Amino acid sequence: MANLSYIGLGMMGGRMAARLLSKGHAVTGYNRTRSKAEALAGDGLRIAGTPREAAAAADVTFVMVANSEALKSVADGGDGFIAGLSAGKMIVDMSTVSPALSRELASRVRGTGADMVDAPVSGSVLTLEQGKLSIMVGGDRATFDRLKPLLEDIGPKVTYVGANGLAVSMKIATNISVAVQMLAFAEGVLLAEKSGIPRQTAVEVMTHSAIGSPMLQYRGPFVLQMPGEAWFNTTMMQKDLRLALEMGRELGVPLPTTSTTNEWLTATRAIGLADDDFAAVFQALARAAGEQR
Amino acid sequence: MANLSYIGLGMMGGRMAARLLSKGHAVTGYNRTRSKAEALAGDGLRIAGTPREAAAAADVTFVMVANSEALKSVADGGDGFIAGLSAGKMIVDMSTVSPALSRELASRVRGTGADMVDAPVSGSVLTLEQGKLSIMVGGDRATFDRLKPLLEDIGPKVTYVGANGLAVSMKIATNISVAVQMLAFAEGVLLAEKSGIPRQTAVEVMTHSAIGSPMLQYRGPFVLQMPGEAWFNTTMMQKDLRLALEMGRELGVPLPTTSTTNEWLTATRAIGLADDDFAAVFQALARAAGEQR
Amino acid sequence: MANLSYIGLGMMGGRMAARLLSKGHAVTGYNRTRSKAEALAGDGLRIAGTPREAAAAADVTFVMVANSEALKSVADGGDGFIAGLSAGKMIVDMSTVSPALSRELASRVRGTGADMVDAPVSGSVLTLEQGKLSIMVGGDRATFDRLKPLLEDIGPKVTYVGANGLAVSMKIATNISVAVQMLAFAEGVLLAEKSGIPRQTAVEVMTHSAIGSPMLQYRGPFVLQMPGEAWFNTTMMQKDLRLALEMGRELGVPLPTTSTTNEWLTATRAIGLADDDFAAVFQALARAAGEQR
Amino acid sequence: MANLSYIGLGMMGGRMAARLLSKGHAVTGYNRTRSKAEALAGDGLRIAGTPREAAAAADVTFVMVANSEALKSVADGGDGFIAGLSAGKMIVDMSTVSPALSRELASRVRGTGADMVDAPVSGSVLTLEQGKLSIMVGGDRATFDRLKPLLEDIGPKVTYVGANGLAVSMKIATNISVAVQMLAFAEGVLLAEKSGIPRQTAVEVMTHSAIGSPMLQYRGPFVLQMPGEAWFNTTMMQKDLRLALEMGRELGVPLPTTSTTNEWLTATRAIGLADDDFAAVFQALARAAGEQR
Repeated sequence: MANLSYIGLGMMGGRMAARLLSKGHAVTGYNRTRSKAEALAGDGLRIAGTPREAAAAADVTFVMVANSEALKSVADGGDGFIAGLSAGKMIVDMSTVSPALSRELASRVRGTGADMVDAPVSGSVLTLEQGKLSIMVGGDRATFDRLKPLLEDIGPKVTYVGANGLAVSMKIATNISVAVQMLAFAEGVLLAEKSGIPRQTAVEVMTHSAIGSPMLQYRGPFVLQMPGEAWFNTTMMQKDLRLALEMGRELGVPLPTTSTTNEWLTATRAIGLADDDFAAVFQALARAAGEQR
Repeated sequence: MANLSYIGLGMMGGRMAARLLSKGHAVTGYNRTRSKAEALAGDGLRIAGTPREAAAAADVTFVMVANSEALKSVADGGDGFIAGLSAGKMIVDMSTVSPALSRELASRVRGTGADMVDAPVSGSVLTLEQGKLSIMVGGDRATFDRLKPLLEDIGPKVTYVGANGLAVSMKIATNISVAVQMLAFAEGVLLAEKSGIPRQTAVEVMTHSAIGSPMLQYRGPFVLQMPGEAWFNTTMMQKDLRLALEMGRELGVPLPTTSTTNEWLTATRAIGLADDDFAAVFQALARAAGEQR
Repeated sequence: MANLSYIGLGMMGGRMAARLLSKGHAVTGYNRTRSKAEALAGDGLRIAGTPREAAAAADVTFVMVANSEALKSVADGGDGFIAGLSAGKMIVDMSTVSPALSRELASRVRGTGADMVDAPVSGSVLTLEQGKLSIMVGGDRATFDRLKPLLEDIGPKVTYVGANGLAVSMKIATNISVAVQMLAFAEGVLLAEKSGIPRQTAVEVMTHSAIGSPMLQYRGPFVLQMPGEAWFNTTMMQKDLRLALEMGRELGVPLPTTSTTNEWLTATRAIGLADDDFAAVFQALARAAGEQR
Repeated sequence: MANLSYIGLGMMGGRMAARLLSKGHAVTGYNRTRSKAEALAGDGLRIAGTPREAAAAADVTFVMVANSEALKSVADGGDGFIAGLSAGKMIVDMSTVSPALSRELASRVRGTGADMVDAPVSGSVLTLEQGKLSIMVGGDRATFDRLKPLLEDIGPKVTYVGANGLAVSMKIATNISVAVQMLAFAEGVLLAEKSGIPRQTAVEVMTHSAIGSPMLQYRGPFVLQMPGEAWFNTTMMQKDLRLALEMGRELGVPLPTTSTTNEWLTATRAIGLADDDFAAVFQALARAAGEQR
């Protein structure tokens, strides 16, 4: 069993740490809001006071935070995890940040003698709990080979994508479809409903048809009943689309449905649903279709 | 076993007729291009010379043609199927036409003492051959109940949606996502590829991730290798989006990703790919991203 | 002075008839709602009971109606203007309909020995009253030459565009920008306003800048105060965009900003502003940006 | 006559410096590429070796550089213009950067006892040479009043918009329409052309119609003949749209036509036209419509 740390114990990170504990690994955890770490103490989580302590305590440190700023704040400075690294240690960064930032961070990690891979996931809380999460990995091939068994303790599909930064590129490229599929689904549901089909029937038919991706199968029903806690909120989704749009601009790839959907996420936030699951884009479209809310 | 006819023996219709024959039903077939009917003679298909003959010969007549014009041409006139109807017969129209046309046709069918349901399918040739096709049905509930066992011989998921015309409405609402998911997927593949990820890796990762709908699982790989024969060509796909856009305009539902995608299907046709599978929208986007072709 | 008729005495047609009367021409008028014709009796308008009577009474008959259906209803049948035509007469159709319909009508007019040009205008009630209207003409060159002085009595810029149907094509191509410029303007005004600039200042600065087209100079201020009567309502504007989108589909021209704007006109109608001037698209966008209304 | 400096002597800045010299002012100039400054020596321009020298030499220093990075590079450090400021001096920043950066810079300028306004312009080289440039000003009202006569030596329309940063906000909000109007115009020209109207006729009719903004009157003809030197290149235009899109996201304003147009500017750059005038978006659309190039 391995000696691990997990930095960032949010909705996904916390569940992954718990999963690693359940597989018998020793896990030290760090979270900015300490209570989230304490909630896992009963499962055996040791609590670190700083990211540095977490990294110093483990052979492999997982990181999953919300955005570039959060990643910098746990990586840098005297208390940052880079300060806790030394030769042979490994960082598995599961955050979705820009590929450029990921590569830059990997390079700094390597400066300490440690190594880093970017390993974002595709899937939701549900997919994770079902043990079906896909993990994409970017970085050195040999490091990937060493980490693979550990990653398979989190999810069954672990794919080596290429050099550092490419896994986040792949994740961002995939997440385009997460957002766009949801808006196209919303268009269909509203069209069916205004035609005279009950909303619930429309959702059932569509999620069970050829367009019913795993994502739509769990998120499609949110247009009938929003979840108590956002699985992935509108602000976070828009952060990912913004990364995609920046990449498209830099690499010369026009992104017509991505850019269109991004503006509807702005509209979703504008009506006060920034912290709701981004399935709330349905509400923004329904409002534009004349619904009161 | 039932006494059936099938009008329109194209890529989907022909396979459905063959499937009904294989289940032991008597099937009479009509196709404008007679050779397609003859190809099924070996499977036991009897050949009708006109749609009227086909309808006169059967208790239940299935129809699946390409568009409104084709539907009118097989329904109307002295040789049309309406002229072959009488009390107790049933029409199962699997074509995707406008809900208004479908309702109007059902009303005329009823004038002969027969009845009609609209029963479009969601899925592809592959889904059909795997016996996994979904069928939505609009029309009289009692007629639906009588037809249900027969429809289950074609595909396992048969859903009653509501009154006449609502099944085509549901189909059109669903098909929005077929087109939009493909374009969003293309955006992601190109973004990944220009980031340095092999196109094939990108396709594999994405089709196996949370966005991998059944449709993307079979059609996504078309961006690596187009099929010899289009499963659903660009012109047909655009016909469905146009129906959706007309409905959106009439019912007051803005369709942002639908309208965006529709223009890219125009671009696909403009570069000569009208008769290719609409996965060719990838080629149109790649060209806009600077690729030569 | 010429012997004229005018069929369709709406907001634009009525003012053009009055203008022709003021230039000394004899004008007979027909309008479906007779009271609009009677309102011009004081200016010297003779009133015809049917389109046929109007055409029979004049050497040149102008037509300006709202859409294809209205055009067919004044052209066809025993009371239609075609029935009132004979060799040497001329029809000047100022309606915006599809180029195909315009060509078909011209052909039928020619069957009577008369001739027809399509002559849609660019500009508004204000442009017309200022005597600055642009008129595009499609049809036979010799017929154009004979009509030109008469058209110059309506507006100073009369341009021969080419064969029948091409002037409406040109008009539709131009009207794309009328709608799109308005939505882009709305985006700018809202962005400025949410930045802290008073809406009125934003409108003034923008309409007086390099983007201030004549159209924006008169219609831009409508976002501050809507006119009592729509100059060109949302439904009419959307009719023109739909013609453009159909042409784009047929001719293979992707229309990205046109299609985007068309969906926002749907949103405008969906919140009850179908009969308002289409500047109301600003209201639809403001609503999507979180404003209550 | 005033004692002035001008930092950034590009296409617009150089001509403004020349204009100020022609009005009799003493002008010191700085440009990163020194040859552009030397080209104006014959008109009386004194040349500064650093931005600091330029600012130290003058009462009022104008700045017009390409983007945020360029602005920081001329403002900061030992050679930056901030180091050359002292009480009573004024900075007139005509660059288009983010409102946040503009406000931050103004605050640092004020720390030296000097003051700063943001004063972006609306218009082109042509507008400038015709003496018709519009200037929007953001900053302290009293400072504006002192600068106004000087600004009127550059262009006749000088508008006080509000506090620091609001003039760049206004500029960015306006520039949305510059880009979008061009793409909508391109859509119309291609639609007219594929209908059978010569491209030149379409351009003439449209630029002289109600949609013919001053911008379209000079840039519309670029679709017939691109200028030797870009008036405003695709990369610069996209920089401005990106600022608008960031503001929209932050302020909660969906920007449908802006985001759509931005992707077509990406397509324009992807086919190698990044340094051409952004009217080249016409070429990108024509390519998507099937034209070879």
